Amino acid sequence: MRSFTEYLWFNTKSKVEFINITSQIEELVEKSKVKEGLCLVNAMHITSSVFINDEEEGLKEDFKRWLEELVPSGKRYKHNLSGEDNAPAHLKRTIMGREVVIAITGGKLDFGPWEQVFYGEFDGQRPKRVLVKIIGE
Amino acid sequence: MRSFTEYLWFNTKSKVEFINITSQIEELVEKSKVKEGLCLVNAMHITSSVFINDEEEGLKEDFKRWLEELVPSGKRYKHNLSGEDNAPAHLKRTIMGREVVIAITGGKLDFGPWEQVFYGEFDGQRPKRVLVKIIGE
Amino acid sequence: MRSFTEYLWFNTKSKVEFINITSQIEELVEKSKVKEGLCLVNAMHITSSVFINDEEEGLKEDFKRWLEELVPSGKRYKHNLSGEDNAPAHLKRTIMGREVVIAITGGKLDFGPWEQVFYGEFDGQRPKRVLVKIIGE
Repeated sequence: MRSFTEYLWFNTKSKVEFINITSQIEELVEKSKVKEGLCLVNAMHITSSVFINDEEEGLKEDFKRWLEELVPSGKRYKHNLSGEDNAPAHLKRTIMGREVVIAITGGKLDFGPWEQVFYGEFDGQRPKRVLVKIIGE
Repeated sequence: MRSFTEYLWFNTKSKVEFINITSQIEELVEKSKVKEGLCLVNAMHITSSVFINDEEEGLKEDFKRWLEELVPSGKRYKHNLSGEDNAPAHLKRTIMGREVVIAITGGKLDFGPWEQVFYGEFDGQRPKRVLVKIIGE
Repeated sequence: MRSFTEYLWFNTKSKVEFINITSQIEELVEKSKVKEGLCLVNAMHITSSVFINDEEEGLKEDFKRWLEELVPSGKRYKHNLSGEDNAPAHLKRTIMGREVVIAITGGKLDFGPWEQVFYGEFDGQRPKRVLVKIIGE
C-alpha cells in the first residue's frame, strides 16, 4: 500500500471566499503515484470547509447569500462571548462540510462531468491549512 | 490491497426522488471480495446526493418538505441567470451530502440496525451516475 | 494492509448531547498500530452524528439552538405519524453529518490545532453505537 500526505496553505483576501483547488489536488494525485485508491481532502480548521460543487460564479454567490440566511451574522452567539467573533463561521462550515473523499481510478480523480473541489473559507484573512491524504496502490 | 470500482446509473421519473440502494451496494461489496476495508459511495453529479438514513415513507416526505423550506424553489438564484433552473438542487444536495464512507467488516457493510443507503435526486429525469469504490483486503 | 474495528457505546443522560470522543479515538489509533492510513468514525444510528468542531461550551449551545431553529421540534412531521417522535433528530443529524474520515500520519490523528471529534446525540437516553474503522500500514 502507498500513502501520501501534503498540506496546502491558504490566506484569503476576504473573510468569506471559495477557491477552486481541483488542479492542485490532481497534481498531488499524480505525484502520489497511486493508481487505485482514495483521496481525502479536509480543512484543518473548524471555520473552513472542503466541498465539491460547480465552478459557476452565480452559484457561488447563491451559496454565500444562502449561508448568511441560514446563519445570520447579526445574531447573538454564545461562542462570541468567549472573545471570538466567528461563531457563524463554525456553523456555515458545518453546512458545507469539513471533508471530501474522492475515488482515484486509473491514476486520476474519478469525477463526474461537473465535479470541482473547493476550499470554502468563512473566517479568512489569516493562514490556514488543508490536508490531502492519499492511500492505495 | 484489493480495489473495486463500479458505476450505477439512475434516471428518476420525478425531479426529486430518494432511492434505496442498499442491496445494490451489498452485492458490489460481495463482488469485490473485500473482507476488511472501506466503501465510498458518491454522487457523480452536483445536484444529487448519497446519504444514509431510515427507510420510512413519512420521513422521506419530511426530508423533501424540510429541504424545500431551507431552499425555497420560488426564490431568485443567480445561478439560474446562467440559463440553468437547478440552483435549489445544488443547495439541497449540499445539505444531504455528496458521499458516504462505509466500513466493510467480515465481508459485509458494517451497519447499525436501521442504516440504509439512499440515492437522493434533486434534478432528475435524466441519466446520472453514482460511483462505488471499495478498497481493502 | 492492516485493518482495525472497534465499537464505542454511548447512553446519554439528555435527549440532545455532544460528547468529545477525541481521546478515545486517539487510543484506538495507537492500538491499531497503523502509522499511515485513514480512520473512519461514524454513528451507527440514524438519529446521531459524528462531527469535528471546537471544544467550547458556548459554541455547543449555539449549535443546539441553531439546530432547533432549522428543525423545530414543535412542527408536525409525517415520520411521527408512524409512532415515532424523533423525526427532528433524523433531520438534525443530517445537518451535523453521519461520519468523519481522519488521516493518520506518523501513527497519530493528523489534526489542525483546534480539531476535536464529537459524538452528537439527538435522540438519546438509550444505548447507541459508534463505529471506528482504521485501515492503513
